[in-house]
Amino acid sequence: MNQHFLNRRVLITGGLGFIGSNLARRLVTAGAQVTLVDSLIPEYGGNVFNIAGIEDRVRVNVSDVRDPHSMAYLVQGQDYLFNLAGQTSHLDSMQDPFNDLEINCRAQLSILEACRAHNPAVKIVFASTRQIYGKPDYLPVDERHLLRPVDVNGINKMAGEWYHILYNNVYGIRACALRLTNTYGPRMRIKDARQTFLGVWIRLAVEGKPFEVWGGEQLRDFTYVDDAVEAILLAATTEAANGRVFNLGGDPPLSLAELAKLLIAANRGGEFVVRAFPPERKAIDIGDYYSDDRLARSTLGWQPCVPLSEGLARTLAYYRENLAEYL
Amino acid sequence: MNQHFLNRRVLITGGLGFIGSNLARRLVTAGAQVTLVDSLIPEYGGNVFNIAGIEDRVRVNVSDVRDPHSMAYLVQGQDYLFNLAGQTSHLDSMQDPFNDLEINCRAQLSILEACRAHNPAVKIVFASTRQIYGKPDYLPVDERHLLRPVDVNGINKMAGEWYHILYNNVYGIRACALRLTNTYGPRMRIKDARQTFLGVWIRLAVEGKPFEVWGGEQLRDFTYVDDAVEAILLAATTEAANGRVFNLGGDPPLSLAELAKLLIAANRGGEFVVRAFPPERKAIDIGDYYSDDRLARSTLGWQPCVPLSEGLARTLAYYRENLAEYL
Repeated sequence: MNQHFLNRRVLITGGLGFIGSNLARRLVTAGAQVTLVDSLIPEYGGNVFNIAGIEDRVRVNVSDVRDPHSMAYLVQGQDYLFNLAGQTSHLDSMQDPFNDLEINCRAQLSILEACRAHNPAVKIVFASTRQIYGKPDYLPVDERHLLRPVDVNGINKMAGEWYHILYNNVYGIRACALRLTNTYGPRMRIKDARQTFLGVWIRLAVEGKPFEVWGGEQLRDFTYVDDAVEAILLAATTEAANGRVFNLGGDPPLSLAELAKLLIAANRGGEFVVRAFPPERKAIDIGDYYSDDRLARSTLGWQPCVPLSEGLARTLAYYRENLAEYL
Repeated sequence: MNQHFLNRRVLITGGLGFIGSNLARRLVTAGAQVTLVDSLIPEYGGNVFNIAGIEDRVRVNVSDVRDPHSMAYLVQGQDYLFNLAGQTSHLDSMQDPFNDLEINCRAQLSILEACRAHNPAVKIVFASTRQIYGKPDYLPVDERHLLRPVDVNGINKMAGEWYHILYNNVYGIRACALRLTNTYGPRMRIKDARQTFLGVWIRLAVEGKPFEVWGGEQLRDFTYVDDAVEAILLAATTEAANGRVFNLGGDPPLSLAELAKLLIAANRGGEFVVRAFPPERKAIDIGDYYSDDRLARSTLGWQPCVPLSEGLARTLAYYRENLAEYL
């Protein structure tokens, strides 16, 4: 894998964010020439500290994927485009559906149009989400499950994913999509619950404060960020992935209450309170979810390697050391 | 049914178009107070002649569904919103994906936001399309079939449909969607193939000129416009339809070559030439398609009544009389 990316030119949108910056670190190690695009909008996931230690080995371009001119320039000459930028807050998408549309639909079309015009030979990996499945009919959820998104964000991400598949199929711009499940690890946003509830849990655990578990019964699966990064790289280098979508999963699913206990064990202390689900979240509650990721395993040769207990321990260690940079 | 719409206030977007104007005629007969919104963009389906004879019994508001201010005003006080306006050209959506996005996504969100703010008690019926299924895995295609759109238009219509379902589920704004298959009849656009190939066939048949059949083997199903209108009204008045999507179908499917023969029989003369599928269409060719419409039949109590031969005869008679208004 390292051999594959040596001296290859790589563009990462959302490159200062959680997954983007972890991907950048991996690619720098592999000898790639990495450009990161990030809007650094304060409420989103971008954080300059995420590239601490590799600042001199990447090029940072602060711009917004909604800006078609900067994207038209930046995609040129790239071998790979890891398209990770997105609006990820479900509540925000309901409060301002138009903003979500601009980022998750229009900007995606504009990135793809830029590739079509200026770099049709690029290979694109798009970060999609299991959120687009909505409430599962059956478990585990495979890629044949109907998409029934439960918020504007899910609808727009569904469209964004399909633009990529379409441009692959119609224009031959090689693209595939990974439907990420709950991804966690160092450099995730922990300031608030915008990306995931787990961020806030980690912050409070590190701060020695109790955290709140809503419901607690729901089953979920989790991918450690290094495993997600590996899947993204494999998707980039696997020609058989073109035009396809893949679920990512992780360890066997567990309930949120069990996750909370694991977190406290990994933290060697702490406490949590179980609370009833707030009514405004109930309307978009999806119950249990976990992925069938066998297609990614068989087609990409991927398998998650970091068990949840180990991943949580590494994450807590990171934030114990770097907490101030994430508040 | 007529009783149901007596004095009810009804708004139809795309109201001067093919299906919108036929729906308006039906609703005027039923005693409804009908307002038509149409942008009258020349390349689209709106045509003032479509309401010839009922001009004094409807209110026409020329505006664009992309204009949030006009929509915010027009939705107020309506009992029903028949949301039929859309960009329907598949080739246009590939040439200008952003325009398609504005009409089929952003405007839909803005209409729904207008209802949420100003008229949450309205009932909405959205005109979706079987195009969003893409190339079928199995036939007939039911509503459990995966959506795999093959053009930008299909992706955006898919999103537009789901915004409606979402606003029903989250905000309780009653909405449902009908996935129309090939709909035909008086007042369809026949000037060119923007809406459907069948329009041009009809025009050329009426003009006594040969028409071209591309491929000819593909199976399709067809709904006569009066039957589509009936389904739309039933969807409006059936509470069990809320939050759901329904396929519409018609007579048993037939090949395009068989359809061409039926058209010539109904026209009592004419000829057609079978041509190979043009390469630029091949990339988005979906092969055979026909609908399983049993859900609409069982839930809405709908059934198509006008056989294809009869529908074609009525359509040809209409255009023989009114051809000049559609060129």
